Amino acid sequence: MTTTVRAWAAPGAGEPLEPITIVRRDLRPDDIRIRIAYAGICHSDIHTVRGEWGDKTYPIAPGHEIAGEVVEVGSEVRTFAVGDRAGVGCMVDSCGECEACADGEEQYCTGGVVWTYASTYPDGEITQGGYSQEIVVTERFALRIPESIPFENAAPLLCAGVTTYSPLEHWGIGPGSKVAVVGMGGLGHMGVQIAHALGAEVTVLSQTDRKAADSKRFGAVAHRATADPAVFRELAESFDFILNTVSAEINLGDYLGLLRRNGVMVNVGMPSEHLPMKVQSLIGRRRSMAGSNIGGIAQTQRMLDFCAEHGIAAEVEVISADQINEAYDRVVNSDVRYRFVIDTDTL
Amino acid sequence: MTTTVRAWAAPGAGEPLEPITIVRRDLRPDDIRIRIAYAGICHSDIHTVRGEWGDKTYPIAPGHEIAGEVVEVGSEVRTFAVGDRAGVGCMVDSCGECEACADGEEQYCTGGVVWTYASTYPDGEITQGGYSQEIVVTERFALRIPESIPFENAAPLLCAGVTTYSPLEHWGIGPGSKVAVVGMGGLGHMGVQIAHALGAEVTVLSQTDRKAADSKRFGAVAHRATADPAVFRELAESFDFILNTVSAEINLGDYLGLLRRNGVMVNVGMPSEHLPMKVQSLIGRRRSMAGSNIGGIAQTQRMLDFCAEHGIAAEVEVISADQINEAYDRVVNSDVRYRFVIDTDTL
Repeated sequence: MTTTVRAWAAPGAGEPLEPITIVRRDLRPDDIRIRIAYAGICHSDIHTVRGEWGDKTYPIAPGHEIAGEVVEVGSEVRTFAVGDRAGVGCMVDSCGECEACADGEEQYCTGGVVWTYASTYPDGEITQGGYSQEIVVTERFALRIPESIPFENAAPLLCAGVTTYSPLEHWGIGPGSKVAVVGMGGLGHMGVQIAHALGAEVTVLSQTDRKAADSKRFGAVAHRATADPAVFRELAESFDFILNTVSAEINLGDYLGLLRRNGVMVNVGMPSEHLPMKVQSLIGRRRSMAGSNIGGIAQTQRMLDFCAEHGIAAEVEVISADQINEAYDRVVNSDVRYRFVIDTDTL
Repeated sequence: MTTTVRAWAAPGAGEPLEPITIVRRDLRPDDIRIRIAYAGICHSDIHTVRGEWGDKTYPIAPGHEIAGEVVEVGSEVRTFAVGDRAGVGCMVDSCGECEACADGEEQYCTGGVVWTYASTYPDGEITQGGYSQEIVVTERFALRIPESIPFENAAPLLCAGVTTYSPLEHWGIGPGSKVAVVGMGGLGHMGVQIAHALGAEVTVLSQTDRKAADSKRFGAVAHRATADPAVFRELAESFDFILNTVSAEINLGDYLGLLRRNGVMVNVGMPSEHLPMKVQSLIGRRRSMAGSNIGGIAQTQRMLDFCAEHGIAAEVEVISADQINEAYDRVVNSDVRYRFVIDTDTL
């Protein structure tokens, strides 16, 4: 017997979200049911429901930054018990058999990741996300949320947190690293805190000085406004690593010029345009430009534990469900400090 | 007292090369004088003398693939003696004090590399390259050419050899690596041989099948003609490493799609255009796109010794000086197997 729960969903591409009911499957032996406390609003929710990332099946209840409490466990569940704090991020399943899965990097599964919403399980079940009262997920794709992090501040870690933690860990950022974080939004404000906690010297590159005080509070040694082109001359060849969290088009040559020899710029935002790239920007200092996609499940758990250990988390604005559509417009206008999370009691 | 030697040089941007005389400085205590036996023709010689890489001071005698014999040594020279086999590549000096120089990566010197031609020493001396009878260079920027490699086959190693060896070494290519080499010209034919000798499984991606037999002879397991778009589907996610030796514009998305998770595409050719880059091509498999510029002096020596050990070298067409201009047109048309070298007795 399936369960019907309240959710907010877009009935069609570009249409406002509205309340609906969705069905959650009965628990399989390895499933847990999470009563969702808060769900974060990620810019990719907006791209998806507005049809900007391709055709989807509607209605779509988005949300892949999910934090709550376990209320039921399947017969063979070993790692969670009723009452545990749990989270779900961008994935709810993967093939489990490819090389990426074997390496614990399910986000690069070549057999087919099942994303948390607007995706399809092998048996045909279409996934619905976290703007809902409950979610049912295999324990293998659930995360443990440390006691010290409130649910509303933990939720955005499941995407914004791990998306920035993953490349910083993968490229070995630590003491001695000089890091620039481009963009101070939901991703960027986590990137600054995590890079600082890893021991790096962090500079924020933001369009304006509006968030300079916050940058310092998050641990950055400097905040520079990129509206001033002199910044690119003054900071030329300054950084070992640039974490670009911006989805908008940027001048790659300007940013690559900020990297030292062997420097790497990793992009976690996804501009829809092609960016003009001059190969010479890479050759002269053996620079690299890379991309990185969220993080694996084990890595997500490491990130959560790391954030708890260092006392960091997302800064959020809690909203009620009837503010979702307004919040979407504000996200698009970069008008949020730094993540909206939906109080699911209001669904 | 300086020395006057014969050379071939371009009197102005885009003008045909013609015989001239140039002056070589008297030996400083750390200098050696090399009687040049052969000088390779690199595509960058053509870009430079034709003014395609910016304004230069003319006349320019190009050539940075230089092999010959030491005929005189300065009073404090310790590493070369008269009669030794010696070579010079793309650089004749660097600041010696920056971090790159300290790391033996003089090609990334931030204090200012002195290139072998069309460049200026700190004292104002303008460099002239290897299309000449002799060159004077500090022993620190001269290489030892192994006895087993004939001068004409060794000369192109000083640029084409190290330009391909350097990224293969830097990114740790070896047994188990699946490598694609894009382009089978002067650089590509060295890249195939070196990657194979390092133990990698090598596939050549060339516009046509014309050079398929050569690819196999150089050690490739496969040669695929990229004129057939099906190649990009069939080889999707096949390679750990792509060495792109092509200076012409390519479709980056097609090539990046050939990389597996964590795969790297390194560009050593320099297209003059901006290439359209879609960041998504990188993100989905945490791919990187990088650039690499020749190699350091110590690395160049390792490459020469490696080539001797593995019995590999450049395949060349020896020409006389009066064939230089015709050879330039043939290089531009990719009509050479695989490097022209000038017999300097004909200057």
